[in-house]
Amino acid sequence: MRVTVLGAGYMGSAMATVASRRGHEVRLWGTWLDDALLNACERGEPHPRLKLVLEGIALFRSGALASALDGAELVIHAVNSDGSVPVMTKAAPFLPDVPVLSVTKGLLESPVTKRMDRIDVVLREHMPKGPGPLRFVHAGGPAKAMEIARRVFTWMQFAGPADAARLCAGALEGEGLVVSTSEDLAGAELCSALKNAYATGLGLWDGHVGANAHDARAACFTQAIAEMQRFVAAAGGRPETVHGPAGVGDLHVTAAAGRNRLFGERVGKGTRAREVAAQMAAAGELTEGYPAIATAMRFARERGVRPLPLLEMLHAVIWEDADVGTSLAHFRLE
Amino acid sequence: MRVTVLGAGYMGSAMATVASRRGHEVRLWGTWLDDALLNACERGEPHPRLKLVLEGIALFRSGALASALDGAELVIHAVNSDGSVPVMTKAAPFLPDVPVLSVTKGLLESPVTKRMDRIDVVLREHMPKGPGPLRFVHAGGPAKAMEIARRVFTWMQFAGPADAARLCAGALEGEGLVVSTSEDLAGAELCSALKNAYATGLGLWDGHVGANAHDARAACFTQAIAEMQRFVAAAGGRPETVHGPAGVGDLHVTAAAGRNRLFGERVGKGTRAREVAAQMAAAGELTEGYPAIATAMRFARERGVRPLPLLEMLHAVIWEDADVGTSLAHFRLE
Repeated sequence: MRVTVLGAGYMGSAMATVASRRGHEVRLWGTWLDDALLNACERGEPHPRLKLVLEGIALFRSGALASALDGAELVIHAVNSDGSVPVMTKAAPFLPDVPVLSVTKGLLESPVTKRMDRIDVVLREHMPKGPGPLRFVHAGGPAKAMEIARRVFTWMQFAGPADAARLCAGALEGEGLVVSTSEDLAGAELCSALKNAYATGLGLWDGHVGANAHDARAACFTQAIAEMQRFVAAAGGRPETVHGPAGVGDLHVTAAAGRNRLFGERVGKGTRAREVAAQMAAAGELTEGYPAIATAMRFARERGVRPLPLLEMLHAVIWEDADVGTSLAHFRLE
Repeated sequence: MRVTVLGAGYMGSAMATVASRRGHEVRLWGTWLDDALLNACERGEPHPRLKLVLEGIALFRSGALASALDGAELVIHAVNSDGSVPVMTKAAPFLPDVPVLSVTKGLLESPVTKRMDRIDVVLREHMPKGPGPLRFVHAGGPAKAMEIARRVFTWMQFAGPADAARLCAGALEGEGLVVSTSEDLAGAELCSALKNAYATGLGLWDGHVGANAHDARAACFTQAIAEMQRFVAAAGGRPETVHGPAGVGDLHVTAAAGRNRLFGERVGKGTRAREVAAQMAAAGELTEGYPAIATAMRFARERGVRPLPLLEMLHAVIWEDADVGTSLAHFRLE
């Protein structure tokens, strides 16, 4: 199968590696921000973020989008949420009528309703009409790029129209990667968008309490699952999605390690969120949890999702400079 | 309120500390195995396991069970599951008709059906009839003794008859301890009994894969939740209990740290389970996960709970000496 991966960053290069190992003809297209990454790969060096040499994968620069997509039978969308609209509107004229598997996680503002919405909804509103409807499949579940590229046992959930989701699963599963499919695109996208926000919360307790905050972390985890279920219900998704790999699974991996948890931990120790975010950005570390808390709160207010005591507390601490100690002390489950 | 705690170990002394801080008159009764712990407390030293001095708590030796229970308005049952039947049959003649809040987690063999069953069911079958029915409330949720005693934010769930559960919650909540109540005693007890077994599974991947097994751990966590839901359904419990503090919450804390996860990790590194268990027992470290896997498997076979691919794989590795690497490689989600 000819597989084109859009976005040559951490997750894009990992998905390209997985696809290549399944015997597909893989093309990895880099955005205008990915030149340095592709330079290293072209010199035969390991991908600078994935730390693996990409073998048997054709590399395409940002100007070669049309040829990268020519004849593709499966497209993997792996640019970050900010890049989704610019990349996909550029890609639209060349996009074949094939499934688009998206590993991108987040919420975007709709140009029509001006509300925060799912990425697939916003992309459809932005993209000029192509030869068919956008056959969008969302890849949820606990899948760290480094680990799927190294064949660590991983459970992903592909959510979208049944035939498209099954095609994507059949193309990629194997060698430690297990893929289940679901038609609950709304539920899976919401879970993926919310996990960075809630993972920050677990870090907050770590930072504030110190080493022995296991009970607080677990309480926070449980409350996050309850609040994610309220979000998913409001978005028309199904509760079982929250209790599966895209929800509980991805929250587990995000809360156990990674930048969003670390961001929360530093704020929990007493540094203001905007300073921590600036420090992490200066060190080249993306902190998706920082904007994710704001977009999740906006989505909730626009749709009347409630009660959300944990998200509200996180928003107060991270975006309204509320005192961490006081906020945690007054936090009430609901 | 007069509160009597049965069992002066780690969790019993922590619950006594919590009750004492709420202003109750607290009596802590030690079993015939707790003499060394009570000796230290009587000398004014910190409790040897909890590492805190017990203040304002009356201590009772094993021979003084009748006077420890005299006039109690709430009884907290905090002996381990093996000790439950001997202690409660001894206590029965002196037990007032008040709620018994049990922090004990596990499954026991019924003397009537000879099947594995919930602790409250088996206690009722063993205990001579008292002045009223046993008003049993199970305390589930992520609550480490050390952390509740130190006022770390903790969410417990008390499950049992509504009036009894609410009485227990009202007596103990406050100062960081949040208690929700539920009537799903079956679901809460099953969750508490299963979490040690499944936490061992997460450790197995840690040991086998090494440091970067986040995806595998999260997949295992998600599968554990799915299997726990099958157990709870077979026991007549409710799915929401699995998705709340007694299920997902307690599994989170148990899988993040502690002896059961460590037991799994050592087995995952290649040492046979019975050797690891013997080493940990020699070091005075209880590994509840070891017998918990066997009792959970027996419960499942006796009731026809299936599919349980994760528990079956754990049972094969831990109790049937199956090779870890081969077992993990052939593991299939279902």
